[in-house]
Amino acid sequence: MPSSEQFASDNYSGICPQAWAAMAEANRMDEPAYGEDIWTARAADGLRELFDTNCDVYFLFNGTAANSLALASIGQSFHSVICHELAHIETDECGGPEYASNGAKLLLGNGPDGKLTPESIEHLVTKRSDIHYPKPKALSLTQATEVGTVYTPEELRAIRAVADRYRLNVHMDGARFANAVASLDVHPSEITWKAGVDVLCFSGTKNGLALGEAVVFFNRDLAEDFEWRCKQAGQLASKMRYISAPWCGLLKDNVWLENARHANACAARLAEGLEGLPGVTLRYPRQVNGVFVDLPEPVQSSLRDAGWRFYNFIGGCSRLMCSWSTTEEQVDRFLADVRATL
Amino acid sequence: MPSSEQFASDNYSGICPQAWAAMAEANRMDEPAYGEDIWTARAADGLRELFDTNCDVYFLFNGTAANSLALASIGQSFHSVICHELAHIETDECGGPEYASNGAKLLLGNGPDGKLTPESIEHLVTKRSDIHYPKPKALSLTQATEVGTVYTPEELRAIRAVADRYRLNVHMDGARFANAVASLDVHPSEITWKAGVDVLCFSGTKNGLALGEAVVFFNRDLAEDFEWRCKQAGQLASKMRYISAPWCGLLKDNVWLENARHANACAARLAEGLEGLPGVTLRYPRQVNGVFVDLPEPVQSSLRDAGWRFYNFIGGCSRLMCSWSTTEEQVDRFLADVRATL
Amino acid sequence: MPSSEQFASDNYSGICPQAWAAMAEANRMDEPAYGEDIWTARAADGLRELFDTNCDVYFLFNGTAANSLALASIGQSFHSVICHELAHIETDECGGPEYASNGAKLLLGNGPDGKLTPESIEHLVTKRSDIHYPKPKALSLTQATEVGTVYTPEELRAIRAVADRYRLNVHMDGARFANAVASLDVHPSEITWKAGVDVLCFSGTKNGLALGEAVVFFNRDLAEDFEWRCKQAGQLASKMRYISAPWCGLLKDNVWLENARHANACAARLAEGLEGLPGVTLRYPRQVNGVFVDLPEPVQSSLRDAGWRFYNFIGGCSRLMCSWSTTEEQVDRFLADVRATL
Amino acid sequence: MPSSEQFASDNYSGICPQAWAAMAEANRMDEPAYGEDIWTARAADGLRELFDTNCDVYFLFNGTAANSLALASIGQSFHSVICHELAHIETDECGGPEYASNGAKLLLGNGPDGKLTPESIEHLVTKRSDIHYPKPKALSLTQATEVGTVYTPEELRAIRAVADRYRLNVHMDGARFANAVASLDVHPSEITWKAGVDVLCFSGTKNGLALGEAVVFFNRDLAEDFEWRCKQAGQLASKMRYISAPWCGLLKDNVWLENARHANACAARLAEGLEGLPGVTLRYPRQVNGVFVDLPEPVQSSLRDAGWRFYNFIGGCSRLMCSWSTTEEQVDRFLADVRATL
Repeated sequence: MPSSEQFASDNYSGICPQAWAAMAEANRMDEPAYGEDIWTARAADGLRELFDTNCDVYFLFNGTAANSLALASIGQSFHSVICHELAHIETDECGGPEYASNGAKLLLGNGPDGKLTPESIEHLVTKRSDIHYPKPKALSLTQATEVGTVYTPEELRAIRAVADRYRLNVHMDGARFANAVASLDVHPSEITWKAGVDVLCFSGTKNGLALGEAVVFFNRDLAEDFEWRCKQAGQLASKMRYISAPWCGLLKDNVWLENARHANACAARLAEGLEGLPGVTLRYPRQVNGVFVDLPEPVQSSLRDAGWRFYNFIGGCSRLMCSWSTTEEQVDRFLADVRATL
Repeated sequence: MPSSEQFASDNYSGICPQAWAAMAEANRMDEPAYGEDIWTARAADGLRELFDTNCDVYFLFNGTAANSLALASIGQSFHSVICHELAHIETDECGGPEYASNGAKLLLGNGPDGKLTPESIEHLVTKRSDIHYPKPKALSLTQATEVGTVYTPEELRAIRAVADRYRLNVHMDGARFANAVASLDVHPSEITWKAGVDVLCFSGTKNGLALGEAVVFFNRDLAEDFEWRCKQAGQLASKMRYISAPWCGLLKDNVWLENARHANACAARLAEGLEGLPGVTLRYPRQVNGVFVDLPEPVQSSLRDAGWRFYNFIGGCSRLMCSWSTTEEQVDRFLADVRATL
Repeated sequence: MPSSEQFASDNYSGICPQAWAAMAEANRMDEPAYGEDIWTARAADGLRELFDTNCDVYFLFNGTAANSLALASIGQSFHSVICHELAHIETDECGGPEYASNGAKLLLGNGPDGKLTPESIEHLVTKRSDIHYPKPKALSLTQATEVGTVYTPEELRAIRAVADRYRLNVHMDGARFANAVASLDVHPSEITWKAGVDVLCFSGTKNGLALGEAVVFFNRDLAEDFEWRCKQAGQLASKMRYISAPWCGLLKDNVWLENARHANACAARLAEGLEGLPGVTLRYPRQVNGVFVDLPEPVQSSLRDAGWRFYNFIGGCSRLMCSWSTTEEQVDRFLADVRATL
Repeated sequence: MPSSEQFASDNYSGICPQAWAAMAEANRMDEPAYGEDIWTARAADGLRELFDTNCDVYFLFNGTAANSLALASIGQSFHSVICHELAHIETDECGGPEYASNGAKLLLGNGPDGKLTPESIEHLVTKRSDIHYPKPKALSLTQATEVGTVYTPEELRAIRAVADRYRLNVHMDGARFANAVASLDVHPSEITWKAGVDVLCFSGTKNGLALGEAVVFFNRDLAEDFEWRCKQAGQLASKMRYISAPWCGLLKDNVWLENARHANACAARLAEGLEGLPGVTLRYPRQVNGVFVDLPEPVQSSLRDAGWRFYNFIGGCSRLMCSWSTTEEQVDRFLADVRATL
């Protein structure tokens, strides 16, 4: 696989230059361990500034852990987490949330375009209230969703109203949070704490880092003793500056947002190029950095033969992911190959 | 703190040049995620070659996770883990092993110089065998120990004989395994599988990486489905090459060993300079990269006032840690400051 | 509620005379604790004799624990358990299996009449095999099922063939195992170890005890250290004879089977009386001690007004449960009341 | 072993007549399951009346579960529980508290006569406050202690003052709570909520039941959703009346207290008879229903040869336990046998 011949995952891409530079700078001298370095403080402050509120911030290694531990801070083992049936925490974390919570159950809701509806949430909360079934306590939303769509601020507030009614805390899986902000063109606060999100897992990995997720507690009560939870769960980096310094690189001059805008734009170009081709249908509206498209099987084969790498995904459609490092040329080359095979 | 004015921790040091170079090389192009990249295969092969055996290798984020998950692969929640009362898994993992195993108990043994004796192990195994107390199943040894000493191959084999008698599996916490190999001047196999170690957690972090521990199963039965365990526990890096490529940098030309030798040599120079000074006593024999020393309180204060950073540790003695990045000049400056205050 | 005016649950009934007599006899003198009494040995031997094989037997307090701990003995936290979507372990144990296993996931299959089909099992095992999803390890069957049907020996053997192909261990939730044996009129071994069941949870509670479930391991490897697991999980009764002596009462002269036959016969009488009445439809074939029936809403109301207690259940039909203590008179009175309201 | 020839355990004794009678009465008719019966409400009300406060009450199967789940309701997996080094939860629950909490650590304090001192508690709380070690959250006291002594109300209040200072919640393991009340001759409230106890596990088993522990939350905030916790952990009895009705038998006419007084009096008679005999020394002051005594080895052998059953326990002394069913004649026979062997 030539490096750039892939739309397989935004996890395939490397470290963006600004994050790399920050890491290099952090590597020039020794620093205290376990987050007592200057970079970690700076990155946490940067996130507080970004969200324009006094939130609690923790840096963890990866998304599985960030989501699982954030959810564990909301509920106990006998509680349940409501999420969409396509939610990553259900389909691709190998039971991470169940493990971190010592047994909480995920209750699967639904809704079009990978988005939970208030009605679906209400249905799940109210269908059982006896002690023979886990009690709903958390609500998990993925922003942007697993199928590349976004919740609008209005949708989030409507969901929050249901959450309030049933005393649910709202967790946001922000594996592609940056892409959602870029797509909606809103201030980050508009789709988080101002819309009633209690805790956000903000991914740096998919945005241009080697690794590193920020768990941002807007509801600071939930963060009580969270540093102990992280330590025990193997999520306290000794040389934490190698997570936090790259985050500083992302935060400075809104690199995180530029990276997301670039990825979204590449996906838009890709979607536009694909739409209208014979036999090619977009499965979901393209709103962020992924295009979910039904491609005729021979087209898929030809593309793969030509060296293109991508996954078939939910319900068998092809998922084409762009990242900060995707190029217009790469998109155009792919489109040309598609057209050539048709 | 000027970067180099510290003997606080080998976790304060940065990324060594060879690891950095490998990371840079890995960053040149996109790569598949979740360990399917070329670097991860190369690093795992490198470790198999290093240990001269067909072991199973996994790369995890940090030592807490590596030790906790390795121990969880040995026993169940109702089993116990025998370790020295000074063992890091007991004193500094915030209950990580208990969490990963869903409740296993650590049974604390003892022995001089931070090393478990066969007698102490046998005592712990035999004092209870009823079902009202967790059943011993794992034996955890730290090599080098938390107080900077090493188990010889003979000592390890004697311990293995006890382990065999009571059907215990042997885990080695190798946070400073490289330093132990350097100190003992043995082939790595001599103090691992040839001495009956079932699973080793080989730290890269303290040896010059940003992060990344290799869990090496010599007893491959214990590794059954271990990749699922890692994933669920939030220890599967999506961009794994940023852990494994630096490991390649360490393994090539025995950088790992040179780094350890250098750190050990710095500690030796430090110990030699301190020994014999009035009121200064080494608490433990200096065998690897740490010096544990009783310093008069006024000396400690003066050093700290001069900007030196180090921790007081077990029983109140000062722990002076060297790393791959410690310099002879730094050691000599420290010694001069000590002598000046006496 | 007059005692007998209920078809709500076989859990509403009391202790049968033979179990009571055994308990009274066990109460005549002091006995060693924690299962070292004569009754526990006798009951375990009785079960080995009943099943005609050298199985391992443990007595636990209730079904939630029996099922959860038996399943935990099969798999790890990152494994999954395949069961029917109507399975009690999914719908009514409040996440007990997830808790006891520290996070295992239940994968929900289906099939008519509450019974898993081999095809459904195979589908669940094969749809995912990557490490991002829990690995199937256990297969749980309820015999008799939650909707009052039974697996035939042939059906069980066909399922075992799939289990063999995919290395699954088979757990049987025998909350109403006695009723299944009575219904099928087979030797208990025919629908357990001879059909490839690895571990059975055989309920005494629903068969006439105050409490007490026997966990019977036909696959004795799975029972390794199970007594420690029970103790840790709060399932080791100190005065165990009050569980095991009543079991002796059930086993002597096949009281367990007579109790089940009686309950099944009452349900048969009930079903026969209901079938053919206008607007009344049996939802599932009546095979054991429960009748699942669609009753017109006004009929339900009238019955409840008349003091009858029963639950509406899966999909809204009425579940009418009989037990060892149900009487023919009670059944006939109920039927008369139904007919009167029509 | 003739039934009465034992001082091995108060767990060896049977069901007292009043509990038996209540159970028989409860067995006369069907009753709703899962605690919705009249007996459970009555028993819970009885305990509220007994303690003269509006506490939350739950009935569990055994002491391991009661203690483990009560402690789990206080803290998270990364917290710690402070208890005496002789505490049953440390020495005889097979890691039950660690399991129920998913990994909490027990921190072992000390103090004479099996009782924690305020100083010991303070030492444990203050010796570590970093995130590398579990954070103390719960304090567990056994009343009466494992060596048969009692905390006075004054001692309890002094401990509560420390608990307040460090925000610890206080759990009381009341395996022999009745014996403590009888010994101290105080109102039950004096050594529970008035002394700052947050949650009490009040044992019925050792007081004359077949099984059944009441978990009594004086701090009702801790009881939030506790019924779900019980259900998930396999501690919700379907036929709960067989636990709660016997509790009604104990509560009526203060049978629980009479049973405890009787057991205490038997132990007093035993202690008085032993004291002063040559070579015989009481290890701990006799305050409740157990006598801890150093008996010469030949005396022990003779007694065992004569059919007496008792355990050697902490530090090798003989533990002689009396119960509601111990008789004066039995005590006198034992004493005669001791004197005869001297």
